[in-house]
Amino acid sequence: MDGATNVITSEEQKKTAAIVRLKNIGLRGVTVADTKISHVDGENGILIYRGYRIEELAQSSTFEETAYLLHHDRLPTENELREFAKELIQARQVPEFVFDALKHLPKKSLPMDVLQAAVPILATADPDLGDETREANMGKAIRLIARVPAIVAGWQRIREGKAPVGSNDALSHAGNFLWQLTGIEPDPEIARDLDTILVLHADHSFNASTFACREVVSTQAHMYAGVAAGVGALSGSLHGGANARVMKMLQELRDEKDVPGWVRTQLEAGRKIMGMGHAVYKTVDPRARFLKDMCFSIGKKLHEDRWCQLSTEIEKTAVAELIARGKSTIRPNVDFYSASVYHLMGIPLDLMTPVFAVARVAGWTAHVIEEKFADAQEKPALYRPLSEYVGHYCGKTGCAYEPVAERKG
Amino acid sequence: MDGATNVITSEEQKKTAAIVRLKNIGLRGVTVADTKISHVDGENGILIYRGYRIEELAQSSTFEETAYLLHHDRLPTENELREFAKELIQARQVPEFVFDALKHLPKKSLPMDVLQAAVPILATADPDLGDETREANMGKAIRLIARVPAIVAGWQRIREGKAPVGSNDALSHAGNFLWQLTGIEPDPEIARDLDTILVLHADHSFNASTFACREVVSTQAHMYAGVAAGVGALSGSLHGGANARVMKMLQELRDEKDVPGWVRTQLEAGRKIMGMGHAVYKTVDPRARFLKDMCFSIGKKLHEDRWCQLSTEIEKTAVAELIARGKSTIRPNVDFYSASVYHLMGIPLDLMTPVFAVARVAGWTAHVIEEKFADAQEKPALYRPLSEYVGHYCGKTGCAYEPVAERKG
Repeated sequence: MDGATNVITSEEQKKTAAIVRLKNIGLRGVTVADTKISHVDGENGILIYRGYRIEELAQSSTFEETAYLLHHDRLPTENELREFAKELIQARQVPEFVFDALKHLPKKSLPMDVLQAAVPILATADPDLGDETREANMGKAIRLIARVPAIVAGWQRIREGKAPVGSNDALSHAGNFLWQLTGIEPDPEIARDLDTILVLHADHSFNASTFACREVVSTQAHMYAGVAAGVGALSGSLHGGANARVMKMLQELRDEKDVPGWVRTQLEAGRKIMGMGHAVYKTVDPRARFLKDMCFSIGKKLHEDRWCQLSTEIEKTAVAELIARGKSTIRPNVDFYSASVYHLMGIPLDLMTPVFAVARVAGWTAHVIEEKFADAQEKPALYRPLSEYVGHYCGKTGCAYEPVAERKG
Repeated sequence: MDGATNVITSEEQKKTAAIVRLKNIGLRGVTVADTKISHVDGENGILIYRGYRIEELAQSSTFEETAYLLHHDRLPTENELREFAKELIQARQVPEFVFDALKHLPKKSLPMDVLQAAVPILATADPDLGDETREANMGKAIRLIARVPAIVAGWQRIREGKAPVGSNDALSHAGNFLWQLTGIEPDPEIARDLDTILVLHADHSFNASTFACREVVSTQAHMYAGVAAGVGALSGSLHGGANARVMKMLQELRDEKDVPGWVRTQLEAGRKIMGMGHAVYKTVDPRARFLKDMCFSIGKKLHEDRWCQLSTEIEKTAVAELIARGKSTIRPNVDFYSASVYHLMGIPLDLMTPVFAVARVAGWTAHVIEEKFADAQEKPALYRPLSEYVGHYCGKTGCAYEPVAERKG
């Protein structure tokens, strides 16, 4: 679906054993596999999940339905959706020993580290761990989608010195997460907004964390091993960690009138504006537009629109300044407005990236299953790239090894 | 150092925004970055660490010295080596809360899952976690290299219902691992053999687990997040999990006289022989040759050479049969003889892959630091490949979303 100037098919590659150098560009612009799950059209700012535009899903779907779509390649019927939602609810209960283990961790631990530790611990509780059929993997996916929010919320409670809150089975996936986080029944509008956010963040083709999940399971590692890698990649400040950094930026700026000067200083120093620009989008990220509206609607409800105003001011100034500098493709990405929205919802700074994981685990697990069960002829082998050696070299005989006593300092 | 038929430099790639399709080949033959750490010359069966041939290091070096070499780009002087070994010894002590947490896990948990959980738990105990200087990362590397064996050994003790064994500071890295595993002072020759095995497994350029580590930290995630991803990738049966599968194969075969028939049946059915063939080596893996000799020398010492004999018989038959089938490049890899060696050393089947991790963590941490601190112009951006969307597509408007009540089954 993208124009190609260089096409090397799998067969040609095998025949010629061509060595292709794409060094130090982070695989930018390199198509590494087929997927049927989602597509990002970066030129036109379009994101689709299994054919459906993200705007349509954000407006009309729910996280449960979207997770079903990502996993089943079509929207569910009423019965199928009811059944799927029930399975998710039944899987919410995290085995007690998992929290018992996490209770030993220092309270100051980063929530993303705790989550990365919890995923392989959840593996040890999975009754189907050794079963690599598609059905068993779907069961693992349901348990992971249901339990990642329970872990994030449970850790928040544990570090506050409180007991984890059990599932409220009457609430939606999003609503129950807020319930497990606070022990307070959430405002239905806020719960619905979070539901929309989870839909918006649920998948995004071969982003760094999804690629990490796929790369790990391409070795035939199990789903939990892959998802733990995804959590690790998401924790990076260039990926999922960006939303928290946007919020820090807003908190440090505070005042709208400081924006123009600050933006210019940043750009003149060659620094980035957090939450702006994207590896794939060359125009507005369709999710950002949605989150901007949500920011103002929640802000209005809570009588606190300063964060959205401040963000808008930064966007306006930065886009104009960037265009003046010949950089017309840098626009707000998904993190830019989600930071303010999370903040308004009462989600602490260091829980913003874990909330991203709560959504993305739906996509990660779908990609893991696609990686494991792609048709044989399309199936990528284990990801094993080459590197170019640019270090010490003494020819084929190797450098001379001197006994330690004879080495000079 | 490899012949190139297709060279696209970073600058050209940026200028033309070329889309390169290398689909579904697992990046085989694709050079993605520079490295100064190690080089695999697959055609000639040569492996070098920082210029030194693996044979030379296996013969003359120690794991401690090799880890220093991988991290410092040169062999240490006597003083430097003494200091480095001391730092490793001092870092061996795993904080008590880590084992307290792991004690809650089911005793039947896979040791690789336990290790993957333990790595981010160790992150929560790292005093320099938020410090991303090179010095702080070197400190994290030392703690990880020292503590991964302590975790593997500690979990073995915990699942046996015993207490983890503290460090024996008089012993080498390899010797102390055997000590912490059993609480018995190891035979010095066995300890030296394990030391050699750790040297042989310490690094291998951009293998799947190392690539996973680099990919994760390319998002600016911390070292532990990356190493946990490496553990996940290593757990796969196409990667580090292969040694245990080789041992299972040997145990199922048992009798040398069954080998020819079994090998032929496997090959005729299009199945692989575990431990043979490699993504990069097109001839004998230089590590395999070393491990074969070691297998016979330990076998002789312990008066049990059946596993080495059985392996040799499989190698002989399989290589001949493969050549007859026109596949002359498939030879024993590092897992083929290491399985028997581990078994002779008393290492349980499901601890063979964790022992691989005990060695490879030296390489993983060196690659993480290289990824984080490569010169700006060589530094890969965050790994973010593209995928080709081959799923449902209804044009730019997206597929029509029908309300759930109206959907047909």
